[in-house]
Amino acid sequence: MTQTRKKFLTLVSLLSLSSIVKASPSKKKPQLAHHVFFWLKDPSSTTDRDKLIQGVKALGRIKEVRMLHVAVPAETEKRDVVDNSYSVSELLFFDSLQDQKIYQDHPLHQKFIQEHSMLWDRVVVYDSMEV
Amino acid sequence: MTQTRKKFLTLVSLLSLSSIVKASPSKKKPQLAHHVFFWLKDPSSTTDRDKLIQGVKALGRIKEVRMLHVAVPAETEKRDVVDNSYSVSELLFFDSLQDQKIYQDHPLHQKFIQEHSMLWDRVVVYDSMEV
Repeated sequence: MTQTRKKFLTLVSLLSLSSIVKASPSKKKPQLAHHVFFWLKDPSSTTDRDKLIQGVKALGRIKEVRMLHVAVPAETEKRDVVDNSYSVSELLFFDSLQDQKIYQDHPLHQKFIQEHSMLWDRVVVYDSMEV
Repeated sequence: MTQTRKKFLTLVSLLSLSSIVKASPSKKKPQLAHHVFFWLKDPSSTTDRDKLIQGVKALGRIKEVRMLHVAVPAETEKRDVVDNSYSVSELLFFDSLQDQKIYQDHPLHQKFIQEHSMLWDRVVVYDSMEV
């Protein structure tokens, strides 16, 4: 093998390695958790609750959403610190602040608000960035 | 191949398949999200915040914990519905109510509370079951 060919192969190896190194962090990006709790106007209406659940689930179609967890209060032990007064929980993960902003402005999200906001009385949002 | 050997191999295949079928649903189990928000006694102390963060991260060693997301308020847009007044967010996933209970009673969790509860002023917990 000539010296030139050896150098060329070393360069190719280094380039391949750098692309792996570059690709790797994106998989391990700190996730932004966007957790929304909904209190329904009529908490006794399972119809309203299920309509909201379906609406929230459809938000998973927005491509920036990395993880979607749609839930209702769990039957864990009643404790003073536990708030189980909400009706529906929506938890989404994003790769970045930018992706969360794209989601906020996304037509599907805007449509969701227009079509479901009459169902809720109160909303609380917690946005947290992984450390 | 003898008939007996054929039957034996079929049995082995069926047993392997049954173990796959058995293992599979656990991966798709509806997840219980246990989300805890901590308000520090001294919100200006990054030392206290970092101590709490390290303590929360160690809870990931409890084997029932399926997913651990430790975070601080994200720099998302300020809106009336967004609560960013807390200092640390701890989000855990569990496979079941039982696993969450095991976690609550786990010596590592109890030790965490003993060693860190002097740091916080207020805690709010949301337990939600995926639907």
